[in-house]
Amino acid sequence: MGINLSNFLSSKSNNTRMIDFQDLDHIDGLSISVLSANLYNNKRDDLSMFYFREGANYASVYTKSKIVSENIKWNLNQSPKKVFSLLVNTRNANAFTGKQGYESLKKIAESMSKELTEKQKQDEDKPQNISPKEILFGCTGTIGESFPFKKINIQIPNLIKKIQYTQNKFIWMKVALGIMTTDTKPKLAMEECKIGNKIVKIYGIAKGSGMIYPNMGTTLAYVFTDATLTNDILSKLLKKNINNTFNAISCDGDTSTNDMITLFATNKVQNSEIKNINEKNIKNFDKSLNNVLLNLAKRVVSDGEGASKFITVNVNKCKNEDDAKKIAFSIANSPLVKTAIAGEDPNWGRIIMAIGKAGVKLNLKKLNVKLGNIKIVQEGKLYINYDEQVAAKYMKSENIEINLEIFTGKKMFTVYTMDFTNKYIQINADYRS
Amino acid sequence: MGINLSNFLSSKSNNTRMIDFQDLDHIDGLSISVLSANLYNNKRDDLSMFYFREGANYASVYTKSKIVSENIKWNLNQSPKKVFSLLVNTRNANAFTGKQGYESLKKIAESMSKELTEKQKQDEDKPQNISPKEILFGCTGTIGESFPFKKINIQIPNLIKKIQYTQNKFIWMKVALGIMTTDTKPKLAMEECKIGNKIVKIYGIAKGSGMIYPNMGTTLAYVFTDATLTNDILSKLLKKNINNTFNAISCDGDTSTNDMITLFATNKVQNSEIKNINEKNIKNFDKSLNNVLLNLAKRVVSDGEGASKFITVNVNKCKNEDDAKKIAFSIANSPLVKTAIAGEDPNWGRIIMAIGKAGVKLNLKKLNVKLGNIKIVQEGKLYINYDEQVAAKYMKSENIEINLEIFTGKKMFTVYTMDFTNKYIQINADYRS
Repeated sequence: MGINLSNFLSSKSNNTRMIDFQDLDHIDGLSISVLSANLYNNKRDDLSMFYFREGANYASVYTKSKIVSENIKWNLNQSPKKVFSLLVNTRNANAFTGKQGYESLKKIAESMSKELTEKQKQDEDKPQNISPKEILFGCTGTIGESFPFKKINIQIPNLIKKIQYTQNKFIWMKVALGIMTTDTKPKLAMEECKIGNKIVKIYGIAKGSGMIYPNMGTTLAYVFTDATLTNDILSKLLKKNINNTFNAISCDGDTSTNDMITLFATNKVQNSEIKNINEKNIKNFDKSLNNVLLNLAKRVVSDGEGASKFITVNVNKCKNEDDAKKIAFSIANSPLVKTAIAGEDPNWGRIIMAIGKAGVKLNLKKLNVKLGNIKIVQEGKLYINYDEQVAAKYMKSENIEINLEIFTGKKMFTVYTMDFTNKYIQINADYRS
Repeated sequence: MGINLSNFLSSKSNNTRMIDFQDLDHIDGLSISVLSANLYNNKRDDLSMFYFREGANYASVYTKSKIVSENIKWNLNQSPKKVFSLLVNTRNANAFTGKQGYESLKKIAESMSKELTEKQKQDEDKPQNISPKEILFGCTGTIGESFPFKKINIQIPNLIKKIQYTQNKFIWMKVALGIMTTDTKPKLAMEECKIGNKIVKIYGIAKGSGMIYPNMGTTLAYVFTDATLTNDILSKLLKKNINNTFNAISCDGDTSTNDMITLFATNKVQNSEIKNINEKNIKNFDKSLNNVLLNLAKRVVSDGEGASKFITVNVNKCKNEDDAKKIAFSIANSPLVKTAIAGEDPNWGRIIMAIGKAGVKLNLKKLNVKLGNIKIVQEGKLYINYDEQVAAKYMKSENIEINLEIFTGKKMFTVYTMDFTNKYIQINADYRS
């Protein structure tokens, strides 16, 4: 199951190197601790703690759903200058759990603040008092089930006991597995780049797949850097780079109550101060961050429930990015397009249908449609040398590209998605228990 | 295959009677002629002519897609006071066929106008010259294949030869079958009602299903009445009644390039003149027209590709109808909700997710969610006596109702859809040839 990403995950940038996920090691200022809190009957790790011994600057983006989980409400209600910990549990989304869910987090944050403050006194030269509001939560799993407060709270001392100040690839793999729900593969990515003349690291993990047992495909992504960057700069960089990465993927058009992406900076590398995201010194980091986010986002799509094909929809020469995005998502979310691709059918009529229903003004007389490099529609007409045999052969590839030129302007947008297979329905129609 | 409609197609109105489709007989002023033009290798009827010997008033609504088929372009380009014929072919959508498609229709309209004018001279006391522009076309089938002009044009004399001036239930069934593509069942509906003290008939047929071989689920619906009504009144009545009937159904959220619904009036019953659709005399007809359209629309949904359940989503107490519609379609188009229902899983968390992602302002503290009459969420919380066993039993029904109260106002909207089964994927992923 899952798609081999090696063909299309290569880094586009020349000045950053693509490192396979096995190689994540140490980010100064970050500790990771993972265990089983018996949320899945002790069958696997399900509770992960990220600890920043000197605190970290941070920025988050959350789901735009009008119904959000209690942990996202908690995170939105706090606005500390630095965070000291992120606690992530699986199996329970803490959504639609109301007061029980929110109060549970409050009590856990209180336990954590107390225990971590004790740890500070033991380990640090300048121990700090860690407040409950300096702790963030990520939750993913079933909606509407009572939040397992006791199971989680009782493990806080054990999580803290396990903290080690140097990380290696094993702990990164362990935590990437520990935050999974129905994912079939852990998702990790990293880049190294320079800010000014200082080398900094950007490490990221993510989860998200189809959506069997948890009610939907919550996406969680956590990205860590040892660079020194303010909350304001982190926030601007995250918002800028989320648009064409995590906001450009779609598995089935559904949106979770729990989506959460956070970028943390441990400030351990004394790089030159960045005051503005347009400065020359931050360009390299900006691009590398985009690579890490795009890499993780592609891994999420390629692990989409039942996926057999990775689909890239490039919409070019549009009046504006919003138009291009509408057309791209109209194609990417169309069950008819996605089932045709699953069936390896070059059924380009369905692509035309999806372009039409996007509701965007078109220049039909110039419209070009290609599957990979194969011309299908040229200047609004079926290409004179179109050969369905050639297109049918292309459809057997694991990596399908749909390339459009709209000719209403100069803007473009790319969306990544996967096909709809029998397996998707089987998985999602299975009764939960 | 398909769903038994008997449980939920009963007429809601007291002053109109629900008649099963077998009973459609004669509408004065309308003739129907059906044959095989060899579009499906002579295996079935595929070409249908509706002929109005004295002309008919009419009004149409068409797809809102930005890419429309050539027959819809033709229909939009003509604006005759009366139409004399509607010709419907299946197998070929005449979409993305460009000049060849449009010119074919022009030539066919010319043949028809010539032959029908001859027929007028033979049969009528006051023969009329029938112009090409007084002919409409309906097309449904594969997109992008060259339009089979010769096969259709050669059959015009045969179609006209077969015209009989009195219709019966057999010809109605034949034409309802003749316009089908991948439908598994013909779709007919009728009502009788009064305008003033005159009884008039409203007969309708429709096609539309999933979307296997033709590239998408084109909906065609043609409704005929013997009442005397102007084009303006027909247009206003059609637009008014399409909103909560054909615009309230969804199979998979995709939109055809060829959707077309036309209402014809033969003006044979000398009812009182109607100048305004708010007049008391037209209320009864208005309601009956809604019944016919809703009946046909429900038949289209219940024949949705691979459907095993008929789903009704009622969104009540909304600020405005638009909000209610957004929430209802967000649920009806969610693959996760549709697969859960296929799996008979009362997975209400997915309904909550779909409500949230609709992007509409909610009153979460008051939100009520019911499956049929079973309370799930009451005042924004899981209902205290909720019993999943009871809900699971309900999900075994063929007819699933999702009932919401949003508490932001007084408006409501109802959407009809079907579930997503393995069969849907199988059918749509099958290679066309």
